[in-house]
Amino acid sequence: MKNLLTIVKVGGGVVEDPESLARLLDSFCSVATAKLLVHGGGRKATALAARLGIETRMIDGRRITDEATLRVATMVYGGLVNKQIVARLQARGVDAIGLTGADMGIIRAHRRPVTGGIDYGFVGDIDAVDPHRLGLMLREGLTPVLAPLTFDPASGSLLNTNADTIAQAVAVSMAKTHAVRLVYCFEKAGVMTDPANPASVIPRIDARSFARLKDDGAVSGGMIPKIENAIRAVAEGVEEAAITSFGDIDAENGTVIRG
Amino acid sequence: MKNLLTIVKVGGGVVEDPESLARLLDSFCSVATAKLLVHGGGRKATALAARLGIETRMIDGRRITDEATLRVATMVYGGLVNKQIVARLQARGVDAIGLTGADMGIIRAHRRPVTGGIDYGFVGDIDAVDPHRLGLMLREGLTPVLAPLTFDPASGSLLNTNADTIAQAVAVSMAKTHAVRLVYCFEKAGVMTDPANPASVIPRIDARSFARLKDDGAVSGGMIPKIENAIRAVAEGVEEAAITSFGDIDAENGTVIRG
Repeated sequence: MKNLLTIVKVGGGVVEDPESLARLLDSFCSVATAKLLVHGGGRKATALAARLGIETRMIDGRRITDEATLRVATMVYGGLVNKQIVARLQARGVDAIGLTGADMGIIRAHRRPVTGGIDYGFVGDIDAVDPHRLGLMLREGLTPVLAPLTFDPASGSLLNTNADTIAQAVAVSMAKTHAVRLVYCFEKAGVMTDPANPASVIPRIDARSFARLKDDGAVSGGMIPKIENAIRAVAEGVEEAAITSFGDIDAENGTVIRG
Repeated sequence: MKNLLTIVKVGGGVVEDPESLARLLDSFCSVATAKLLVHGGGRKATALAARLGIETRMIDGRRITDEATLRVATMVYGGLVNKQIVARLQARGVDAIGLTGADMGIIRAHRRPVTGGIDYGFVGDIDAVDPHRLGLMLREGLTPVLAPLTFDPASGSLLNTNADTIAQAVAVSMAKTHAVRLVYCFEKAGVMTDPANPASVIPRIDARSFARLKDDGAVSGGMIPKIENAIRAVAEGVEEAAITSFGDIDAENGTVIRG
């Protein structure tokens, strides 16, 4: 039987608010299986970049990462956010280790080619996750905390990569050896047909119902790539994916995505 | 027989200059034994703090670390400097992993008590290094890269700690299981009686000759705590310590400190 592994992805919105972060970490600590945390940190990087006089350019919700922005992302994601989370998990008795894709070469990527005239700059599309090294950490009782930075072995550069995508790629890679539950958690209770009404959470989504929800316009915006990531993860061997509140990681009150 | 381990400490001055850093990393890669790198990064943090409007206060060459300064140190030491070094080592085929004292709880410290009316702020004095986890990394063929940040388990805070001191504490801790060579490398060729004359490098120092050199005024300033660290490391089980040029880690052209 495969060992259980819970992979939790949490966005920058939760991470940057001290109270929300504390609640998330409490919730994360209560997960009884082996676990791994992937974090974002977008707004903090934007704020720091602004203070340093670096202009933040976004296209379709993606940050354009020039060299100065990559330095800010490395400082904020790889340094401040990652190490603060590690320290707070250690203080809660969770033996955390903070990593980027460059550490042990665990997440290899290539720089996204210019498409449709858009050069995203130092943004990485993932080529491979090393499940052996992550597996070794888990066997040692460690809890990896992954920053949204991947590594281009060809250039030796770190690359900025979407945290949802990293969580999905790591989940699929670990699914060969582990029974993986992938949890995208954020400020809302789950995927809702009416963002103003918490009772409108959709308890279950599969590929077929997702197509219908999209056609109806019941789900839209940033929720669509998140659900797509979750559905792809399940199609590629992850046991279950969930989109849920950051205070409720272990329960099933959010939206569950199965094959 | 104990396995060989080379522990290299490099200061902020070398790390912040791209050409010097490249030479250091080439030199570090040529070390044939298992190895571990400890880096500083003081000037970069000072520069970033200034750009963010944070005043840097120094007393006796030590940075006073208030909360804002600790955040800058976490960004610059734990993020930018550490992860750039890791990425560049990976690109050179060295399987590096970047760590602070909080990761796996490897370097535990307590906040320095107020002494002589000076409150250093978030500065840590080391209590314990975990040699087992570092040993595990080395057995896996990994090369740990340590940022000058320790961890206070009581408060869950990272703490700013002098990189020379970290290198010495790690070397002493690993000396129980490894034959450790501890190398402090920097811009100069070694400990010199005349800073303007590279031919004045003192090839060998022990506790007795060090006392004489201090009395004569032949060594002074920042060199004194460095030599003291090295002598203490050798007294506590490290096979050999050296103070040498960052381009010449593996050779013995600098100053060698033995028991």
